Amino acid sequence: MLSKTGTYKFHIESYTCDFTGKVTLPIIGNFILQAATIHASERNFGYDEMSEGNAAWVLSRLSIQMYEYPGHDRDLIVETWVQDVARFYTQRCFRFLNGENQIIGYARSIWAAIDIQTRRPIDIPSWRPDLNDYVEEEKECPIDKMSKIPSVDDTEPAMGYSVRYSDIDINKHMNSVKYMEHAINVFEPKMFEDKVIHKFEIVYLAEGQFGDKLKLYCSDLSDTEVLIDTKRCDESICRCRIIWK
Amino acid sequence: MLSKTGTYKFHIESYTCDFTGKVTLPIIGNFILQAATIHASERNFGYDEMSEGNAAWVLSRLSIQMYEYPGHDRDLIVETWVQDVARFYTQRCFRFLNGENQIIGYARSIWAAIDIQTRRPIDIPSWRPDLNDYVEEEKECPIDKMSKIPSVDDTEPAMGYSVRYSDIDINKHMNSVKYMEHAINVFEPKMFEDKVIHKFEIVYLAEGQFGDKLKLYCSDLSDTEVLIDTKRCDESICRCRIIWK
Repeated sequence: MLSKTGTYKFHIESYTCDFTGKVTLPIIGNFILQAATIHASERNFGYDEMSEGNAAWVLSRLSIQMYEYPGHDRDLIVETWVQDVARFYTQRCFRFLNGENQIIGYARSIWAAIDIQTRRPIDIPSWRPDLNDYVEEEKECPIDKMSKIPSVDDTEPAMGYSVRYSDIDINKHMNSVKYMEHAINVFEPKMFEDKVIHKFEIVYLAEGQFGDKLKLYCSDLSDTEVLIDTKRCDESICRCRIIWK
Repeated sequence: MLSKTGTYKFHIESYTCDFTGKVTLPIIGNFILQAATIHASERNFGYDEMSEGNAAWVLSRLSIQMYEYPGHDRDLIVETWVQDVARFYTQRCFRFLNGENQIIGYARSIWAAIDIQTRRPIDIPSWRPDLNDYVEEEKECPIDKMSKIPSVDDTEPAMGYSVRYSDIDINKHMNSVKYMEHAINVFEPKMFEDKVIHKFEIVYLAEGQFGDKLKLYCSDLSDTEVLIDTKRCDESICRCRIIWK
């Protein structure tokens, strides 16, 4: 049996950096999804095995906390493990290290398994009892459990965009990371000069489809805490909470 | 002395694929820029050496021709070499191979060297006569020289966007590949289901800056040939010619 924790190394290319020369949060989102995909696939509960069983993993929530963003030409090491298998979801955690093996962040994610045809959730422990063998109880993820993100009922959107070709991924729906990219685009560059995103939480509520006209509503809870609600008409598609430091 | 041609291998991750499961053209654009950057840096005319001399390479034109787009989990091999060093520009070519070592495309690019302070072009052969040692005369790049791309003087834009955080790169201006990504976004998904982009040409005319409101004007020259002019007010920032097959 493979180790419970998988470790994956990524190199920070210049085109994955923002104007401050550091890797962007959406790129860390890509690394998270890629590490999760490889970890699951190596342990026989990845994309291929799920598809054979007519099922798919769907990312439902993600919370990322970063103490340092690696810069151009540096390494980012992602460790990932399954923390918990419940009836209708699994919790997967992540620890991030820099090239000097120092801890620079953590993330938690919640995944549902759905039936591809009915789009209904699958009872994970009865369907795949073997997942329990991979639950890592020794490793800690010292960031808060994800809290509810309230809706923003502002009347004036801060920004809007249409879902286009570059937003749609290999699964034929709006890519999870693209919501993050658009949400962060509401901020002015000055914000990124003065501060970094210390904590980013996102909950996915509905699937964005090609041609959807989405609107982003923002609410400043304080100087450093912002809620962003991405809506299609009156329906929340996803909600983020961002804490700057 | 290093070989004149550099060879770099890239792996196609799922998040770099579009809904057809193939790598996108903008991602190939990233690979092109990364291969050029490493090739130049390994031969001592890269970013660091240029910066020390108060100079920078600026991409002025790019033409890509693809016969096949590799899919998820496959390799894309990029070969690059300097084809020509003229007074105010160098021409760099690319050849693309798939994991089975079959040729799947070519690209040509034109680069100017500019003085970082004055933003004026530098006389390359007098400044760096050693670049001539790397000119590869044996290798062929069997795609047409780049032709002029006319302006599109339509009154109604097909699409518009504001330049935001995710568009600005480590050089603090709009990323060359982001123009490609936005331009391709004018097409409906049906187009990508039925056809592939066989040829893509782009000429960069001015630098997009944060907050710019850009508008894309399109002109269909035929069923398969489209011009896209990206403008800031009446000024063309960049122009593309796209041939579908």
